[in-house]
Amino acid sequence: MRVLVPFDAREPKTRLDPVLDPDERAAFARAMLADVLDAVRTAGHAPEVLATAPVDVDAPVTVDERPLSPAVNGVLSTCDRPVAVVAADLPLATPAALAELAEPDADLVLAPGLGGGTNALSTRHPAFRVDYHDGSYRAHRAWAADRDATLVTLDSFRLAVDIDEPADLAELLIHGDGRGAAWLQEVGFELVAGERGLAARRD
Amino acid sequence: MRVLVPFDAREPKTRLDPVLDPDERAAFARAMLADVLDAVRTAGHAPEVLATAPVDVDAPVTVDERPLSPAVNGVLSTCDRPVAVVAADLPLATPAALAELAEPDADLVLAPGLGGGTNALSTRHPAFRVDYHDGSYRAHRAWAADRDATLVTLDSFRLAVDIDEPADLAELLIHGDGRGAAWLQEVGFELVAGERGLAARRD
Repeated sequence: MRVLVPFDAREPKTRLDPVLDPDERAAFARAMLADVLDAVRTAGHAPEVLATAPVDVDAPVTVDERPLSPAVNGVLSTCDRPVAVVAADLPLATPAALAELAEPDADLVLAPGLGGGTNALSTRHPAFRVDYHDGSYRAHRAWAADRDATLVTLDSFRLAVDIDEPADLAELLIHGDGRGAAWLQEVGFELVAGERGLAARRD
Repeated sequence: MRVLVPFDAREPKTRLDPVLDPDERAAFARAMLADVLDAVRTAGHAPEVLATAPVDVDAPVTVDERPLSPAVNGVLSTCDRPVAVVAADLPLATPAALAELAEPDADLVLAPGLGGGTNALSTRHPAFRVDYHDGSYRAHRAWAADRDATLVTLDSFRLAVDIDEPADLAELLIHGDGRGAAWLQEVGFELVAGERGLAARRD
């Protein structure tokens, strides 16, 4: 199965601006991307990065400057099935959870993210195109329902937690053991009591 | 497997105070409890409610006025194994996810919640006691590591999302199809674009 990992190489993780400066955001985004690529490989697939600018990573890189949805759909319109699309900000993704993307014999397999996004998906349907936005999980479900396409939704906490804003960092410190979690610890983040359970803070 | 479902029958869901009045919180908590009891039954187990006050539900109820951890440990200190403890605010819990609690032949099975809590667990170890607090997932893991007890962590989005504060309501509207989700819709909550993907609002 082809596995695309879209990556914003220009201004990654802007919503972490309150806690990380631009260079830190770039370094952290790269560490999380490395975690995702490792997990995809361990799951038995060869990841391909789809980046908005050239980026030096240990995987083939295709550069497409367009926004996320048209860039992904540019690949989906020409590539063989099955194909998966896995977000680059899923450093908690495990090989086991990613392997489930390939297992169901369904037209569309969705892994929802917190807040209603689509963090990972795979498709065997030649007409499927992504439509990433707030609530894309429901939009992708509706696409399948409109066509009587078969749909499987994965139940994975590891795939649901995209690291997008400061409140998400705690999940990575609690559950992560890869480069993203190590990077956070190296720059001084630690777990403290927060408004909703544990939170990540640095002095 | 015995399945305990602790329930605060006195002042449930106080952290939903910004969006629900006390009577609404009580009704919503009961709707979510009913969803959890249904899912436990469909998973093949007979749920038992452990409540802080008498409550009229379709399951055996034991009343224990103590705080959550001593009340649960009061049962754990005397009951047979395996035994599971499932939070009452998991209306997205599926029978499939709950069934996984019983499957591993492990001393301790943990389903982490967002923010580092322990939303569901099962144990076959006679000495295990709960210690619910911010970060209880790590505390429960540490308990197992200290004793060389075998541990399995479940990877379930459905068990990770406890409905605890206003930001959580969106997940129930996006993914829920039970009584908790229906109750939210009946009182006027709907999905709108929020700071992190979709959010639940009512006029």
